[in-house]
Amino acid sequence: MARVLTPQAEDFPRWYQDVVAKAELAEPGPVRGSQVIRPVGYAIWERMVDEMDARIKAAGAENVSFPLLIPESYLRREAQHVEGFSPELAVVTHGGGKPLDEPVVIRPTSETIFGEFMAKWVQSYRDLPLLLNQWCNVLRWEMRTRLFLRSAEFLWQEGHTAHATEADAREYARKILHEAYEDFMVNVLAVPVTVGLKTVRERFAGATRTYTLEAMMRDGKALQMGTSHELGQNFARAFEIDYLSAAGKQEYCWTTSWGSSTRMVGGLIMCHGDDSGLRVPPRLAPIQAQVTVVKHGDGALAAAAKLRDALRDAGVRVGFDERVDIPFGRRAVNAELRGYPVRVEVGPRDLAAGNVILVRRLDGSKTPVNMADAVGAVVAALESDQQALFDEADARRVQHTEDVRTLANAIEAAGVGFARLPWAKVGTAGETKANELGVSVRCLIRPDGSVPDSEDEKGLIAYLARSY
Amino acid sequence: MARVLTPQAEDFPRWYQDVVAKAELAEPGPVRGSQVIRPVGYAIWERMVDEMDARIKAAGAENVSFPLLIPESYLRREAQHVEGFSPELAVVTHGGGKPLDEPVVIRPTSETIFGEFMAKWVQSYRDLPLLLNQWCNVLRWEMRTRLFLRSAEFLWQEGHTAHATEADAREYARKILHEAYEDFMVNVLAVPVTVGLKTVRERFAGATRTYTLEAMMRDGKALQMGTSHELGQNFARAFEIDYLSAAGKQEYCWTTSWGSSTRMVGGLIMCHGDDSGLRVPPRLAPIQAQVTVVKHGDGALAAAAKLRDALRDAGVRVGFDERVDIPFGRRAVNAELRGYPVRVEVGPRDLAAGNVILVRRLDGSKTPVNMADAVGAVVAALESDQQALFDEADARRVQHTEDVRTLANAIEAAGVGFARLPWAKVGTAGETKANELGVSVRCLIRPDGSVPDSEDEKGLIAYLARSY
Repeated sequence: MARVLTPQAEDFPRWYQDVVAKAELAEPGPVRGSQVIRPVGYAIWERMVDEMDARIKAAGAENVSFPLLIPESYLRREAQHVEGFSPELAVVTHGGGKPLDEPVVIRPTSETIFGEFMAKWVQSYRDLPLLLNQWCNVLRWEMRTRLFLRSAEFLWQEGHTAHATEADAREYARKILHEAYEDFMVNVLAVPVTVGLKTVRERFAGATRTYTLEAMMRDGKALQMGTSHELGQNFARAFEIDYLSAAGKQEYCWTTSWGSSTRMVGGLIMCHGDDSGLRVPPRLAPIQAQVTVVKHGDGALAAAAKLRDALRDAGVRVGFDERVDIPFGRRAVNAELRGYPVRVEVGPRDLAAGNVILVRRLDGSKTPVNMADAVGAVVAALESDQQALFDEADARRVQHTEDVRTLANAIEAAGVGFARLPWAKVGTAGETKANELGVSVRCLIRPDGSVPDSEDEKGLIAYLARSY
Repeated sequence: MARVLTPQAEDFPRWYQDVVAKAELAEPGPVRGSQVIRPVGYAIWERMVDEMDARIKAAGAENVSFPLLIPESYLRREAQHVEGFSPELAVVTHGGGKPLDEPVVIRPTSETIFGEFMAKWVQSYRDLPLLLNQWCNVLRWEMRTRLFLRSAEFLWQEGHTAHATEADAREYARKILHEAYEDFMVNVLAVPVTVGLKTVRERFAGATRTYTLEAMMRDGKALQMGTSHELGQNFARAFEIDYLSAAGKQEYCWTTSWGSSTRMVGGLIMCHGDDSGLRVPPRLAPIQAQVTVVKHGDGALAAAAKLRDALRDAGVRVGFDERVDIPFGRRAVNAELRGYPVRVEVGPRDLAAGNVILVRRLDGSKTPVNMADAVGAVVAALESDQQALFDEADARRVQHTEDVRTLANAIEAAGVGFARLPWAKVGTAGETKANELGVSVRCLIRPDGSVPDSEDEKGLIAYLARSY
């Protein structure tokens, strides 16, 4: 069979580009850094949105829609924030054929405009916590872009909350981190993540603490899959988000923000994909089982349609491929590229023996299954392959995480995976040196694996890696 | 009780503004014409998206995501299109701190950029029809804006399809019109719509035919709730969307586009709302039944929670209000403002008699119901009030639609509702005259109520009205 993709071992970035193109996930748009997400890619994102949205709502946040355009002056009100985002802004200077009185920017993120309105909506402690989220597009004028991973415009959710106390804000930022993000990534995406605190240098512009979830890609590099920030009272002071406490005192709120984006699609590809294409975990997959008519004749089409309906009734998301005018081999290659977890091939020859063929994307195995047992076999395969994908990724992460004792060793180990060492051996000076060599501190964790409150805690472990 | 809203009869536009503000649906954003959609308003839009998306997918279209920014040059390729949209464009001239080589615009609609990519994706007749849709934000720099009804930025879906023949394109534009839009509006929004063809003057910039769904608001004005366009080969020629036919000939495609937006939220408010606030039809309502604890004591809270769970188990979308620290009257007013179809009041006094009180938003009726029958009574009320809302709106539409014989009478009748008369009595000259007096031809229908293919057909009926 002709080679469809550049093998991962030969050129990983090229493999990634090939998958995105050949599986018809996305392609570059006409304006620099923009992207067109095609049906196959968008269906994956839609499933991510469904799963994440349910978790965000379960955490008590309500969805809203804020404007795309933000007055430039808003960004200037928080010093670190404007410093962080100014180089990446797209500026609208004309509207309706006339120059604007004040230039406005396309939102790179929305802390400032949420802050402006939270200040109006929050009056007393009874209005707190205020828990908001939006699904939208944002735009950051990036210098080097890559489909899904770093695009100028991308789709995401951004949560913005206001709380009466620092403790409450911290609890909520961590609730989203674990109950929405980590739970989704581990249990739906089947992507193991290292959850920790960003160093002061790596944290979000305007935050007092940034929590992160870092996943290891198949080339050993790290991808930040989502972040949750405590913003302290920085934005509350800049936008006058204050409230009358139960004790009758005017107090500033404590705010948080947290986001995850179409970048996760890139993470999914690079964590699970292999030399035949995507492998989409069953719980996420828009199509979990692709029923494929091998060729017409001897009731194959009718049997396939019946199986499709039975699978649907069993709650399986089913695709149906009866395009026998296209060579079977090409259809099989396409199904592999797109990573359908299971394919069921229905053809006259096997049907004569009462069988269909169950093909698992996980390992490419092909098993004849009696038609009467087909639904059960598909459901069982979906269940076990979800776990198997996670286990495989987790084993790889363990294998490619090296415990080291010196910064020099960490930088070396980061060439092929994650390096783990005491944060005390790195420190701010070590971090600078690592950065100069293309390695960054991905996050800090406590010795027991939990997430620290500060990089000054004793005994912290640092994860260093190259990253996307 | 203090007056909450300006009565409709006193000042309808003011009533609308009051409802949007007091029910906390939306408020103006900082940049002219922008809006912030708050949780109560956004939950309504989310339900619209869910219902519409299912219908659009059932019609075979697949979701995608195209870029926000479009090169200005794309718009210039279709003469009528650029003429129609140029006055409304927002232009980005700077990105990443530098002037851009070519200015780009924020999409006012996406025919051009879809056209550019369709041309790449469509090669042969086997690639047709190509049926795409996206949910996104668009921006048109409007001079006079009103929340939901006419905002500069708004949320919508825009479908874009390419077909091998004109007949196929027409069939699909009409399929969306009836099976997605009309079905949703009638059966979910409970809004009767007049479905017809736009005149040449009123059609979309670049279309050969525009189909529309027009609803009557409570002040007798028309609101365009959605449109579906045949674009002929205009965009296919401008963007080179062509294909190799089965006969081996290179042919231009026929394309369509169709859209519906957050404007429908405005239509919902103005079609069903009354002097107490919104009335949301049960099938749409994010909260169908609000279980309200009147006051604590004698097991009221436990009984209310039990009822909430039983309603949820019966598939009802339930809200729960146990905030007994807020005066009961204020909570009742808020529930009416937000238009929950049914409220179930659970209080110690009625509970002593085994009862709860069922309050229907439709007519304000309050009925004691035995706790054991409460779930059934709620489900029955939701069912019948969905129909009752539609019937009420439809009766109003009939009552305020006047059959007239002359243009002068039509213009007069359009002061209070819809005027209906033979299109032959209006014509292009009459249309100009009506427009000068603030009246427009909303659509044309055939005598049998069906949708014409051309304004030149004999015997067509014209609907004239003032409009939003």
